[in-house]
Amino acid sequence: MAEAADAVDVIRTKRDGGVLSDLQIDWVIDAYTRGVVADEQMSALAMAVLLNGLTSPELSRWTAAMINSGERLDLSGVTRPTADKHSTGGVGDKITLPLAPLVAACGVAVPQLSGRGLGHTGGTLDKLESIPGWRAQVSNADFIRQLNDVGAVVCAAGDGLAPADKKLYALRDVTGTVESIDLIASSIMSKKIAEGSHALVLDVKVGTGAFMKDEPRARKLAETMVALGTAHGVKTVALLTDMNTPLGRTAGNALEVAESVEVLAGGGPADVVELTLALAREMLEAAGVDVDPAAVLADGRAMDVWRRMIAAQGGDPDAPLPTASEKHVVTADSSGVLTRLDALAVGIAAWRLGAGRARKEDAVSFGAGVVMLAKPGDSVATGQPLLELHTDDTARFERALEALAGGIEIGTTAPDRQLVIDRIS
Amino acid sequence: MAEAADAVDVIRTKRDGGVLSDLQIDWVIDAYTRGVVADEQMSALAMAVLLNGLTSPELSRWTAAMINSGERLDLSGVTRPTADKHSTGGVGDKITLPLAPLVAACGVAVPQLSGRGLGHTGGTLDKLESIPGWRAQVSNADFIRQLNDVGAVVCAAGDGLAPADKKLYALRDVTGTVESIDLIASSIMSKKIAEGSHALVLDVKVGTGAFMKDEPRARKLAETMVALGTAHGVKTVALLTDMNTPLGRTAGNALEVAESVEVLAGGGPADVVELTLALAREMLEAAGVDVDPAAVLADGRAMDVWRRMIAAQGGDPDAPLPTASEKHVVTADSSGVLTRLDALAVGIAAWRLGAGRARKEDAVSFGAGVVMLAKPGDSVATGQPLLELHTDDTARFERALEALAGGIEIGTTAPDRQLVIDRIS
Repeated sequence: MAEAADAVDVIRTKRDGGVLSDLQIDWVIDAYTRGVVADEQMSALAMAVLLNGLTSPELSRWTAAMINSGERLDLSGVTRPTADKHSTGGVGDKITLPLAPLVAACGVAVPQLSGRGLGHTGGTLDKLESIPGWRAQVSNADFIRQLNDVGAVVCAAGDGLAPADKKLYALRDVTGTVESIDLIASSIMSKKIAEGSHALVLDVKVGTGAFMKDEPRARKLAETMVALGTAHGVKTVALLTDMNTPLGRTAGNALEVAESVEVLAGGGPADVVELTLALAREMLEAAGVDVDPAAVLADGRAMDVWRRMIAAQGGDPDAPLPTASEKHVVTADSSGVLTRLDALAVGIAAWRLGAGRARKEDAVSFGAGVVMLAKPGDSVATGQPLLELHTDDTARFERALEALAGGIEIGTTAPDRQLVIDRIS
Repeated sequence: MAEAADAVDVIRTKRDGGVLSDLQIDWVIDAYTRGVVADEQMSALAMAVLLNGLTSPELSRWTAAMINSGERLDLSGVTRPTADKHSTGGVGDKITLPLAPLVAACGVAVPQLSGRGLGHTGGTLDKLESIPGWRAQVSNADFIRQLNDVGAVVCAAGDGLAPADKKLYALRDVTGTVESIDLIASSIMSKKIAEGSHALVLDVKVGTGAFMKDEPRARKLAETMVALGTAHGVKTVALLTDMNTPLGRTAGNALEVAESVEVLAGGGPADVVELTLALAREMLEAAGVDVDPAAVLADGRAMDVWRRMIAAQGGDPDAPLPTASEKHVVTADSSGVLTRLDALAVGIAAWRLGAGRARKEDAVSFGAGVVMLAKPGDSVATGQPLLELHTDDTARFERALEALAGGIEIGTTAPDRQLVIDRIS
């Protein structure tokens, strides 16, 4: 078959600051997926895109081409309105766990395809897999059935969704081309749009523990993704939320499941509850459903859906969760107010304790992680326990403690934390 | 073995406009040559270099790393001073053929490693191979012996010179990263410096038939290469020369050999003679030899060296040259002065007639090419022959004529041609 375009022409156009035609974009994504455009050509193009940018119409077309590289889920068999949530990733970010059943209990179906963790941020699937029996793999037929019967599914994405993104993401990872807002936005949104939901709420993290460390870039990413979702007919809204300190009091797989169950039981850390409710309100509004999620959380209906959701995927909601065999307590070295508990430091510590993986093929320890006994703003006294480190291997404590060095500060006044920084729609 | 650096770190540094350390440069070129840095990583780095540039010290180190990826020829066994010439490539550019024996006849050894043609510019080796019996391959021992006995060798470069460049050049060709002055300069100069000559004269072409179409970029390339040569201890000078119209009256392999022999016999087109003498004077001055090349050309000594140089590599200087079987004459469609005979148009026509190759593995036709019966500035009358197209295959005429369309203009006054535009040292 004759090719419709030429890889070097496409690369040169973007290299020289030009605008790619629809034909060029459609062709280069399709040809890359087919292997006609080589990795070394796509990485040169990715670098040119990173340095010279894409216009809004180019980015929209690029995203459409990524979606069209695979299947788009057909949710027409789902009787309720649908809403999906995506977080750009943070430390202690277990929000999907209470959020999905809560929103489902409010009458909106939540089709949530999630990923595994890599590096210092945990993955939702890793957390849920700490529940004995729970399976991340769900067939397309079971996916629709569970959405209708239970209202929420959190599961692994199949290989059929945006295969171009899967290939391009792996390439960007080794070629220094991850940090392009255009490429990040199209990567996230191609998968999310392919999931077929009517509404999408984005939780864009900003801070030391987030991928975006500074607010202007996080805001730009949020705006870019909202524009992309809207252009593709998905009602999309983003919250810009703080990730300078971890969410809640736990970072680690089973530890975060337990904390999520506390929230569903009406308790749990205030920040987790606040963000869960804020995101639930956005998802319900985007789906056009007028229900107060705080009431549904309080009266136990969200917990009911959680139990059914876990059981539908083989999990036992009553089974004891895995725990780590070894613990180490980090105490305060002075008295005062805890002014900083750095998200990145805690995230790396949890990762090094075994909660995360360095390579895709690594296994995670379900019990490992960090329990935060104090959070910024709390008064602490010398010798008081601040953190509890959990691991299966005492050899891991040392490197976890190294990660925490400089991440904990005790002073006089903690800065106010604005959890939800802004709303972008 | 642990690696001294990380490819993604190197890419990110250049992507973000930073300066690469010597260690990073040495490592990335060496690791790429060894296959530890993958093609897709090097192409991303090449794009970042193209868009963000290299500083002078970075470029010098980069070039040194490319030289160090292979062997550097040892010319210590050559008793005479040495001088080399490199042209960035043009249409009808057969200058090496009369120049090498001329400079050798003046007392300077000329070690000239040359390439084959690709696209619309011909290659010196392709031209010489049209001489029956002539071989481009010369062993290292024969190379030194011929330099001492004859004074000039024009032959193929071995695989041992700058293998990093060979690999990188092939990569750049398919990834839209050819057009970086830094990468062009380091590619050319790594090979030329590795050839071990004391002096180097660069013929940097500018115009429609040249790689550099505009003078500022050609000048920048010349300045960059002169600085690189000087930094590496090679006395380097560049001439910026016109390539808007072909050099001489022939473009094609055997046709250009015949024209070169005319020059060596004291005749030939004025522009070929002028440029040959200009480059010869530069090479002699750079090598510190005070001889008038015009006298040596006039008295037949250059022709003597030519005959010995061809014979030393198996060629018969008296054998009839190959000719093409088919000819087609292009005539003037009006009367006046030939104001334009475009170098690119003639180059592409010669290529399509069979003189050049589209892919490395293609064979060239030795007899094919274009004979220019008129040059810009000549008065012509309607119906007067302007060009003679030579080929072995009449089916090629049509596409050659298409290439020439728009490349020939007849008017009232031809612009003055300044053959040597500038000298950069």
